[in-house]
Amino acid sequence: MDETVKYTLDESRLPEAWYNVAADLPEPPAPVLHPGTGQPVGPDDLAPLFPMEVILQEVSTDERIPIPEEVRDVYRLWRPTPLYRARRLEKALDTPARIFYKYEGVSPTGSHKPNTAVAQGFYNAREGVKRITTETGAGQWGSSLAFAGQLFGLEIDVYMVRISYQQKPYRRALMETFGARCVASPSEETASGRAILAEHPDSNGSLGIAISEAVEMAVQRDDTKYSLGSVLNHVLLHQTVIGEEAIAQMDLADAYPDVLIGCTGGGSNFAGLVFPFIGQKLRGGADMRVIAVEPAACPTLTRGELAYDFGDTGHLTPLVKMHTLGSTFVPPGFHAGGLRYHGMAPLVSHLHKLGLIEARAYHQTQVFEAGVRFARAEGIVPAPEANHAVKAAIDEALRCREEGVSETILFNLSGHGHFDMAAYTDHFAGKLEDIEYDEAELATALAALPPVAV
Amino acid sequence: MDETVKYTLDESRLPEAWYNVAADLPEPPAPVLHPGTGQPVGPDDLAPLFPMEVILQEVSTDERIPIPEEVRDVYRLWRPTPLYRARRLEKALDTPARIFYKYEGVSPTGSHKPNTAVAQGFYNAREGVKRITTETGAGQWGSSLAFAGQLFGLEIDVYMVRISYQQKPYRRALMETFGARCVASPSEETASGRAILAEHPDSNGSLGIAISEAVEMAVQRDDTKYSLGSVLNHVLLHQTVIGEEAIAQMDLADAYPDVLIGCTGGGSNFAGLVFPFIGQKLRGGADMRVIAVEPAACPTLTRGELAYDFGDTGHLTPLVKMHTLGSTFVPPGFHAGGLRYHGMAPLVSHLHKLGLIEARAYHQTQVFEAGVRFARAEGIVPAPEANHAVKAAIDEALRCREEGVSETILFNLSGHGHFDMAAYTDHFAGKLEDIEYDEAELATALAALPPVAV
Repeated sequence: MDETVKYTLDESRLPEAWYNVAADLPEPPAPVLHPGTGQPVGPDDLAPLFPMEVILQEVSTDERIPIPEEVRDVYRLWRPTPLYRARRLEKALDTPARIFYKYEGVSPTGSHKPNTAVAQGFYNAREGVKRITTETGAGQWGSSLAFAGQLFGLEIDVYMVRISYQQKPYRRALMETFGARCVASPSEETASGRAILAEHPDSNGSLGIAISEAVEMAVQRDDTKYSLGSVLNHVLLHQTVIGEEAIAQMDLADAYPDVLIGCTGGGSNFAGLVFPFIGQKLRGGADMRVIAVEPAACPTLTRGELAYDFGDTGHLTPLVKMHTLGSTFVPPGFHAGGLRYHGMAPLVSHLHKLGLIEARAYHQTQVFEAGVRFARAEGIVPAPEANHAVKAAIDEALRCREEGVSETILFNLSGHGHFDMAAYTDHFAGKLEDIEYDEAELATALAALPPVAV
Repeated sequence: MDETVKYTLDESRLPEAWYNVAADLPEPPAPVLHPGTGQPVGPDDLAPLFPMEVILQEVSTDERIPIPEEVRDVYRLWRPTPLYRARRLEKALDTPARIFYKYEGVSPTGSHKPNTAVAQGFYNAREGVKRITTETGAGQWGSSLAFAGQLFGLEIDVYMVRISYQQKPYRRALMETFGARCVASPSEETASGRAILAEHPDSNGSLGIAISEAVEMAVQRDDTKYSLGSVLNHVLLHQTVIGEEAIAQMDLADAYPDVLIGCTGGGSNFAGLVFPFIGQKLRGGADMRVIAVEPAACPTLTRGELAYDFGDTGHLTPLVKMHTLGSTFVPPGFHAGGLRYHGMAPLVSHLHKLGLIEARAYHQTQVFEAGVRFARAEGIVPAPEANHAVKAAIDEALRCREEGVSETILFNLSGHGHFDMAAYTDHFAGKLEDIEYDEAELATALAALPPVAV
């Protein structure tokens, strides 16, 4: 029996539309509010930040939104991505479960992030934007937007969380290779950066701070917009190309998932895989369990509150209703930098409230153990973020063994770990710790949530 | 017009056989000699080092050697690899040339090396070998053999050039993730290592030294063999899966190369692409130019001698006739670690002598400039080694522009640069230098070539 089972789609089957879960929800998600008035924001409020096409996608309830040909043309550099059956892992686990994974690590930056970077780059360029500002944590997003900016002739300014800027020079080099400018955040370039530095000259930065800086720079110039790599509806929408392909590939495998799994930071790779399947269920298709996996050190879905909150630390963004740890909460340093955000995508939060998804949290040592186990069986070294999904998939497969049931598990292997080998080095040296967040800080941050009726 | 033009082969078209250029040569390559007797070695002389199937392949003159199903099964994890037309690069260069590239960076370790690692791992396992020793420079080869060893249940011991062991901890982490043991070379584990350390306690090591250590360890135990990642005939043979796929893909593109390009360290990725095309030419097919590109700091083909020489510094290996800088020559440190070997594959050397290939050398600053240019146009960041091929492809395309001719260029993009971003960081910081080798050291090394009649 062949041990490698890979389902590839011909380029002709690259999806022609993204799937919009908002079209099928039994209850609409809460509106985005203007922080000054407390009233729902309209397109004009968002126009300084985003191109109009993106704003319309943010509020659209159309079930399918066509992918522009120019975006599909770039997607074809690496898409359709492969879907594998993890037969060697199944054997190593001695499980009756069938484990499948969708692999997004074949993209030019090694993760799922270019799926939305390319779309946002295209829409901005088409509407005459010359420059985009953004933030990045570990650098997956910044490098992906840099890649897209280069292809569409856009200037890209990336505010990179200072601790990552210092500790992860390689993703910074990747951004510069693609022609982007990368600035350590907090910086002296913005009022919000200077305010933080005045109080904390040695600030390590955070995603919330970097967002404030990027937003501040975007609204200052007419030719400049802002871009976000996760959380917002349009970002999740663009990522559904993952799930749309996976549906076709599971069909080739003559299988359908009983359990769907993805890791969650802002929520976009998770949503990208699972929303199209949830859509099928909402339209009368088969039922399944859907598991969002987050780090125990930044437990947005499992320990945060579902409340209106700011997306950034400087409170420059609109208010969105989401699972949040509070916009002033600074997650401790751990190795899955892509999962260190205080909030969760409003749509993911909403689906959690509707009972369509469940959530669980893991500590990083067990997550890296799972990643090594996966690499030794399947030959692909996952990114630290993706290791969270791997851990949950392994646990579900072991449950199947205990229960003697042959369920079908599908998870999103959202990126490779080639940029993150320092974390594996720490893991093998026994230097990884199970980092706890600060309970008192969390309580303070949650108590400081803005007073908006939920 | 679509800018992304990618030629993918269906899995069903994964080659069923490797191509052996020895079958078609007008003049056979010189035999490998026993260093003691000066006589051609027989299979029994090599048996302590290699499994018998590999030894037979080393001397085979069969035109096609079937790829075992177990090897094809693992190949299917990432093969067939894509072949692209670099239309965005063509546009950026304003050239009438058509530029194609075969992309091997989609493999689990990000380079072409697993093509032979998997084959060697399989043959060793089938013949009952329990442990394989090998050397590695920058770590591409060591991590690939570690990957293969894990899949076939083999223990892998890697002697890694000390300077790379210290400067490139991430590829070491990759080896350990795949379960291999990685030792800095020269080490205290071997007589050859101890001899070097006695004289040079601070030795940075070299591939030649690491080979001596790996060979020494292999011959000591019956359950242990040695494995080499380049240079030898069977290694080049396994890499021809690249060219066999490329022939089918160029056919899909309705094109045929006028110019073939690959970078050369030991010669295997170059040979893997070009040998199948040269075979077609030798059997009456179309003519083309074939260019081997090497670093000016380690100019084996352009400045070395075609002579019998040892493959290692400790003179434990048989003598092979190859372009060499002398086995005592230690190339200076530069960023394409995979190209720092004193010799060149005997088959590549032989084809150069027969006039079937030409060679050129570039300095590393111009090579990195070419790599950045490529990344900004095509979205893929090449490995420093592959940048040599990129530079030659760009130069050929610019020549076509000057001459007003529309030639078809095909080069091997043998790996991605995600593990090598430190080199790009140095490049952007202006820290890369055009390193010259030591002329006096080269003269000394060449004068010390073993006295074998050529």
